[in-house]
Amino acid sequence: MEMKIPRFAVVLSGCGVFDGTEIHEAVLTMLAIERAGAQYQCFAPNTWQARTIDHFTGNAIAIAGDEDNRNVLAESARICRGQVKDLAEFQARDFEGIVFPGGFGAALNLSNFAVKGAECEVNEEVRRALEESYRQGLVIGAMCIAPVVIARVLGKEHIRLTIGNDKNTAAGLAKMGALPEERKATEVCVDEEHKIVTTPCYMLARSMVEIADGTANLVSEMLDLMDY
Amino acid sequence: MEMKIPRFAVVLSGCGVFDGTEIHEAVLTMLAIERAGAQYQCFAPNTWQARTIDHFTGNAIAIAGDEDNRNVLAESARICRGQVKDLAEFQARDFEGIVFPGGFGAALNLSNFAVKGAECEVNEEVRRALEESYRQGLVIGAMCIAPVVIARVLGKEHIRLTIGNDKNTAAGLAKMGALPEERKATEVCVDEEHKIVTTPCYMLARSMVEIADGTANLVSEMLDLMDY
Repeated sequence: MEMKIPRFAVVLSGCGVFDGTEIHEAVLTMLAIERAGAQYQCFAPNTWQARTIDHFTGNAIAIAGDEDNRNVLAESARICRGQVKDLAEFQARDFEGIVFPGGFGAALNLSNFAVKGAECEVNEEVRRALEESYRQGLVIGAMCIAPVVIARVLGKEHIRLTIGNDKNTAAGLAKMGALPEERKATEVCVDEEHKIVTTPCYMLARSMVEIADGTANLVSEMLDLMDY
Repeated sequence: MEMKIPRFAVVLSGCGVFDGTEIHEAVLTMLAIERAGAQYQCFAPNTWQARTIDHFTGNAIAIAGDEDNRNVLAESARICRGQVKDLAEFQARDFEGIVFPGGFGAALNLSNFAVKGAECEVNEEVRRALEESYRQGLVIGAMCIAPVVIARVLGKEHIRLTIGNDKNTAAGLAKMGALPEERKATEVCVDEEHKIVTTPCYMLARSMVEIADGTANLVSEMLDLMDY
């Protein structure tokens, strides 16, 4: 009997909560995948950040078009010790799951939801990866604000999602066709029909222990939905 | 009876293994502290990185003096969602322990061990924090390559340390007066006399689970040495 090891693609959006990936969510997702005996490969789109924020002062130090603005792929590489691939190389057939940690990068770089709300555009490689993953039956996971990206691409399928209990963001999800549900910080929303799993993480969490628990719950539910 | 919560200072050196703090080691140290029921405050020196590395290509994109080189404090803030203080504000009396995650930042920004070896200089705020912590009886922890910083400041006390099993780095530790000991990836070297605890982490580890275990072991041994 062949033992198959579940493979996750982890899609990053930079490095740091205010202009990229939320680092704790990304690291603890990777740890949860490894602890579950599964494997992961990180990806990020090779594109420019919408802005670069000094995380100490909170000030923008560069915006798109500036020479010293930062590249999403190069910054994402920091979170995984250089082991990241250009999202253009992603092929759904190589994975059983694809998961999106949160951070403003999801709403600024993977999409522009932070600026345009429900009418946002989605990065074309992100859109392709999500559509291909959905068509091929991969389990799709997202945490924190990242479910808005899933909603913009797959909302027309009336998918069930959570972003915690924020009314404005939930209204945005609904406008995109999705069915938002309230969850507490470490709870998971499982849409079995569409194989989509979401959890609030730092939309509600107040500690790293909650992030560790929420990401472990997310990965566990994703594994339960995978076909073996 | 008053319950006292142990307080850790976590000293960062940037954000990313090749020019700053190793992110997994930092995040999993913070998680281990929180899981143990203790508290932490992150610090970083307000100084410039020795270099800035594109973590995707591995190329240096800036060096000290370049306009687009990065600041250690601003980059460190990414790892802790902005909640970092200038190391100049550190006062040993506010803490029971001080801990240094690894990454090249320890050997490039906190010290210049990567360039000068055993004759390296140590950032003056890092030196002050370490000397003050040692004098006041705090437990000092370090992982990966960061023990070289401890050795340069406190080596004359003949402290026992580990950086795994790398012969060249161990020779550097010995030249600085320290007594290097071999340890496996998740094992800890405890110098009870000087209250110094070290563990190899990514000097030897090959997985995030090993980093989670090694940092948890480190934090646990640090707590055991604290006075209550």
